[in-house]
Amino acid sequence: MRIAFIGLGNMGAPMARNLIKAGHQLNLFDLNKSVLAELAELGGQISASPKDAANASELVITMLPAAAHVRSVYLNDDGVLAGVRAGTPVVDCSTIDPQTVRAVHAAAAKQGVDLADAPVSGGTGGAAAGTLTFMVGGSDALFATLQPVLAQMGRNIVHCGEVGTGQIAKICNNLLLGISMVGVSEAMALGNALGIDTQVLAGIINSSTGRCWSSDTYNPWPGIIDTAPASRGYTGGFGAELMLKDLGLATEAARQVHQPVILGAVAQQLYQAMSLRGDGGKDFSAIVESYRKPE
Amino acid sequence: MRIAFIGLGNMGAPMARNLIKAGHQLNLFDLNKSVLAELAELGGQISASPKDAANASELVITMLPAAAHVRSVYLNDDGVLAGVRAGTPVVDCSTIDPQTVRAVHAAAAKQGVDLADAPVSGGTGGAAAGTLTFMVGGSDALFATLQPVLAQMGRNIVHCGEVGTGQIAKICNNLLLGISMVGVSEAMALGNALGIDTQVLAGIINSSTGRCWSSDTYNPWPGIIDTAPASRGYTGGFGAELMLKDLGLATEAARQVHQPVILGAVAQQLYQAMSLRGDGGKDFSAIVESYRKPE
Amino acid sequence: MRIAFIGLGNMGAPMARNLIKAGHQLNLFDLNKSVLAELAELGGQISASPKDAANASELVITMLPAAAHVRSVYLNDDGVLAGVRAGTPVVDCSTIDPQTVRAVHAAAAKQGVDLADAPVSGGTGGAAAGTLTFMVGGSDALFATLQPVLAQMGRNIVHCGEVGTGQIAKICNNLLLGISMVGVSEAMALGNALGIDTQVLAGIINSSTGRCWSSDTYNPWPGIIDTAPASRGYTGGFGAELMLKDLGLATEAARQVHQPVILGAVAQQLYQAMSLRGDGGKDFSAIVESYRKPE
Amino acid sequence: MRIAFIGLGNMGAPMARNLIKAGHQLNLFDLNKSVLAELAELGGQISASPKDAANASELVITMLPAAAHVRSVYLNDDGVLAGVRAGTPVVDCSTIDPQTVRAVHAAAAKQGVDLADAPVSGGTGGAAAGTLTFMVGGSDALFATLQPVLAQMGRNIVHCGEVGTGQIAKICNNLLLGISMVGVSEAMALGNALGIDTQVLAGIINSSTGRCWSSDTYNPWPGIIDTAPASRGYTGGFGAELMLKDLGLATEAARQVHQPVILGAVAQQLYQAMSLRGDGGKDFSAIVESYRKPE
Repeated sequence: MRIAFIGLGNMGAPMARNLIKAGHQLNLFDLNKSVLAELAELGGQISASPKDAANASELVITMLPAAAHVRSVYLNDDGVLAGVRAGTPVVDCSTIDPQTVRAVHAAAAKQGVDLADAPVSGGTGGAAAGTLTFMVGGSDALFATLQPVLAQMGRNIVHCGEVGTGQIAKICNNLLLGISMVGVSEAMALGNALGIDTQVLAGIINSSTGRCWSSDTYNPWPGIIDTAPASRGYTGGFGAELMLKDLGLATEAARQVHQPVILGAVAQQLYQAMSLRGDGGKDFSAIVESYRKPE
Repeated sequence: MRIAFIGLGNMGAPMARNLIKAGHQLNLFDLNKSVLAELAELGGQISASPKDAANASELVITMLPAAAHVRSVYLNDDGVLAGVRAGTPVVDCSTIDPQTVRAVHAAAAKQGVDLADAPVSGGTGGAAAGTLTFMVGGSDALFATLQPVLAQMGRNIVHCGEVGTGQIAKICNNLLLGISMVGVSEAMALGNALGIDTQVLAGIINSSTGRCWSSDTYNPWPGIIDTAPASRGYTGGFGAELMLKDLGLATEAARQVHQPVILGAVAQQLYQAMSLRGDGGKDFSAIVESYRKPE
Repeated sequence: MRIAFIGLGNMGAPMARNLIKAGHQLNLFDLNKSVLAELAELGGQISASPKDAANASELVITMLPAAAHVRSVYLNDDGVLAGVRAGTPVVDCSTIDPQTVRAVHAAAAKQGVDLADAPVSGGTGGAAAGTLTFMVGGSDALFATLQPVLAQMGRNIVHCGEVGTGQIAKICNNLLLGISMVGVSEAMALGNALGIDTQVLAGIINSSTGRCWSSDTYNPWPGIIDTAPASRGYTGGFGAELMLKDLGLATEAARQVHQPVILGAVAQQLYQAMSLRGDGGKDFSAIVESYRKPE
Repeated sequence: MRIAFIGLGNMGAPMARNLIKAGHQLNLFDLNKSVLAELAELGGQISASPKDAANASELVITMLPAAAHVRSVYLNDDGVLAGVRAGTPVVDCSTIDPQTVRAVHAAAAKQGVDLADAPVSGGTGGAAAGTLTFMVGGSDALFATLQPVLAQMGRNIVHCGEVGTGQIAKICNNLLLGISMVGVSEAMALGNALGIDTQVLAGIINSSTGRCWSSDTYNPWPGIIDTAPASRGYTGGFGAELMLKDLGLATEAARQVHQPVILGAVAQQLYQAMSLRGDGGKDFSAIVESYRKPE
C-alpha cells in the first residue's frame, strides 16, 4: 500500500519504520532532513511537501507535536488537503485538542475525504516495539479501513466513537493518570513519614481499594517496582513535560465546555512547579519528590 | 475461647455474631441495651463494664467509633486496662489516629499487656459475611495469636508492622481512594461533556494507565458497573461521612508530621461541600454529582 | 482629532460616545449595524472596514472580545494594518493574552506603526461614566501621545512598561482578585457557621491583616456593603463568566512560562463549577453561595 | 489590682511586664523558672500553681500555646478552676479552637465564674510595645470589666460577641490572610515571569481590586515594602509554623461544622510543604519562594 507518513519525530519515525518493515511503500515528509535520509535508506520515498506526499498515496498518516502543526500541515497551500484525492482515508495520530480535530475533519469532508483521529499511548518504547495503543475516533467505515494498518504499529486498536473521541479518550485517561500519580505519591510519602514500611504499604494498597496503575505498575516510590522509572532515577518513561501537555489539553477542553476539573487543575500546577524547579525532563512519577524532605 | 467484645455498633455487632457462631464465649459491653439483648439470645454474656468484660476474658477486642471512645473505654476507672490481666492479648479494630493507638499501647504495656491495632475495610457487608480485611499493627507474637481469631471475622489478615501501622495503612489507602474517586469523577464527567460514550470511556480507562478500583470496580458514573452504588442511586456502600472521617484522620496525621497532602486536602473539602449540601449520607462515589449539571 | 474606533460592544460603545462628546471625529467599525446607526446619529462616521477606518484616522483604538478578533481585525486583508499609515499611534484596549499583543505589535512595527495595549478595569459603569482605569503597555513616546485621549474615557491612566505589560498587569491583578474573593467567601461562611455575627467579622477583617478590596468594598456576604452586588442579588457588577475569561488568560499565560498558579487554578475551577450550575451570569462574588447550605 | 498571669512565653512575658509597669500586683505562674525570676525582679509574685495564683487574685489572665495546655491549666487538680473565687473575671488570651474555649467556659460557669476568650494579633513586637489587638468573646459585663486592663497591653480591644467569638474572629481573619499571601505570591511571581516590573505591578494592584494587606503592607516580593520581612530575608514577622497552627485550627473548626474551606486547605498544605523543606521558621511570606525558580 502507498502510504503518506508526515511527521517523523520520536514517535513518528519508529512508527514509519514498522510500516516499511510490513511491506508498505511510504511517501515521507518532515522538516528534519537526517531522519528522512535514514528512512529513505530503508526504502521510503521523500516527498517535497505534505501535498505531494498525500497526492501520491492511498492512505495518509500524520503524527505531529501540537495543534498548530496539524493546522498548517493540513490547511496550508502545500498541505495535505491541497493534494489528497477524494476518497483517500486519512488519520491523524497527534495528541491535540478535539476542537482542532473536528475543524480539520470538517475541512476534509468538504472535499470528500474522511479523517479519523487516533492518538496513541505507549511512548517511544511502544512505537519501536509496535505495541502502541491507538484510540481511534472516526466513522465505522474508516475505522474498518484503518484498523489493519494501525495494527502493524500497535497492539490495541480501540474504536472510541465519532471523530474527536480518540482525543477525548486520551485526554480523560491522562487527566486521571496525572491525578492518580499525585495521589499515590501523597499516600506513599505520608505512610513513610508516619513510619510504615513502604513495600508493605504498596502491597496493601495494591490489594485494596487504593489499587491503581500508578501504584501497582508504575509506583513512584523507589524500589517498589523494579521496572518503574522510580527504580532508575526517574529516567525514561513519560516525561513530566508531556504530562503537562496532556493536562493542559484537558483543562483547556474542560474550560471550553464549562466543566470543572478541580483535582486535575491542581495536579497540573504541581507538575508545573516541578517543571519550574528544573525537573520537567524527569519521568512524571518524580512528582513524589515534591513530597519528600530534601536531602 | 473467652473473648471480651466491646463496641457493638453497625460493624461490631455482626463481627461479634461471627465469633459466637465460631463457638467462642463472648463477654459483651455496649451502651446500647437492645443490641446486647439480641446478642445475649445468641449465647453472649453481658458485662457491666469494659473492666468486667476484660477481666473475665482471654482475649479483648474493641470496635469503637472514634479516638475519644477508645481513650475512655481503655483508660477510664472501669475501663479495659483496669480489668485486663497481664499477658492477655488485646486488639482494637477501631479506625482512629495512630497517635492514640500508640498512647493506649504504651499504657497497656506498663501493665504487661500487648495491644495491636487492626482497623478493617469491607464495610457492614463484609462484617456480616465475615469477609473483612484486617490491617494489623503489632508485634509478631501478638499477630500470630490474633490471626486465627481475626480470620473468623475476615478473609484477608495483613500484618503491617509494629503497633500503629494498621491505622497508617488504612489511612493511606483511604486517602488515595478518596482522591481516586474524585479523579475518576472528573475524567468521566469531562468525557461525557466532550461527547464520548461513558461506557466506552470507562472501558478504555480500565485497560489503560488510568485503571483503578474507583473506575473498574466502583465507577461513580451510573450504569457503568451494575453492582456499584452509582447504579442504585448511591445507596449502600461507603458513606461520604465515613470517607470524611478517614480523610480527616489522614490530613490530621499529615499535619502532625509536617507532610503535605495537597490533593488529599482538596478531596476532603470537596466531600465536605457534598456534606454541606446534605448529601453526606450517600455513598462517597456520589461526589460525581458535583461535576454534573443539575437537572 | 480623527480617531478610528473599532469594536463597539458593551464597553466600546460608551467609550466611543465619550470621545464623540469630547469633540473628536470618529471613524467607526463594528459588525453590529444598530450600534453604528446609534453612534452615527451622535456624529460618528461609519467605515466599511477596519482598513478604511484606520486609513482615514490619526489614531486607532480597538476594543474587542478576544484574541481571535484582535488577530483578524488587525491582520486580515481588510484589517487595520492594511490601512493604517506609518507613524499613526494605535492602541488595543481588549483584554487578551500578552503573546497575541506582542505578535500584533511586531507586525505593526514592520510597517512603522507603534502599538500599545491598554486593557481597562471599571466595567460598563466606568465606561459610561468615563472613569475607567487604563493599564497601558507601550513605549514612552506612545504613552505620552495616548494619555490625553485615554483620559477622556478614564480617570486613571497607568503606564505599566513595554508593550504587553498592560495585559500582564490586568491578568495578575484579576488573578489575585479571583483568589481573594474566594478567600473572603470561605472566611465569611466559616465565621457564620461557627456563630460569629458576619457584620462584626467583616469589621474585624477590614481593620486587620485579612483586609482586602473583596472584603471592605465588595464583600460577597449579603448586607455587609450596601453598594456591593451581594446586597442586590448578585446582579450588575463583574460577571463570573468575565472572571473565568481572565483566570483562563492567567493560567494559560502561566502555563506558557512554566509558572505555577496553584490557588489561581483552583479558584478558576470553582468559578467553572459555578458556571456549570448555571450561575455564570451572576456577579463573581456569588461564589460565596458555593459555601452556603442550600435553602 | 491583683492579677494572676499564667503562661509567660514569648507573648505572655512582655504582656505581663506591661501590666507590672501599669502598677498592678501580678501573681505569676509558668514552668520556666528563669522567666519567673526575671519578672519577680520587676515586682511580680511567684505562685506555686495556677490554683494558687488564681486564688490570690481579683482577675485571671492566661496565655498558653495550645488547647491541651488550656485544658490542664484550668481543669487539673491544681488548676485555675480549683482556686478561683466565684465572681472573679477570667480571660484566656491563647489562640485555640472555639470548642475548647466553650468547654472551659462551661466548667467555669458552673462555679460562678465568667470566662472570656481574647486571642491577640500583633506578634511579639506588639506584645512588647503594648499595641496588640485583642479579639474578645464574652458577655457584655465581662467585656466592660476586662477592657481597661486589656487596653494596658493593647491598642485595639474589639468585642466580637459571646464567648468563643474571639477565637472565631481570629481564625477566620488568619484563614483569609493565609490565602491572600499565597494569592499575592502567585500574582507577583507570574507578573515577574511574564516580564512586568514588580514594583509597577505592586503599585497597580495596590490601587486596584487586588489590593490587600498582604500586598500593600507586607508584600512577599523582596524590595517592594522596605519594612516587610521580604526585605530582610524573611526574618522576624509571623513564622510559617504559626500560620500553620492557625490554618490547622481553621480547617479543624470547619471540619466540625461541615463547612468547606477549599482554598484554605490548599494554602495550609502549601505552608506544610514549605515546612517540610525546612523553611517553617521563616516569615510566612516566604511562601513566595515556592513560586520562584531556585537559584
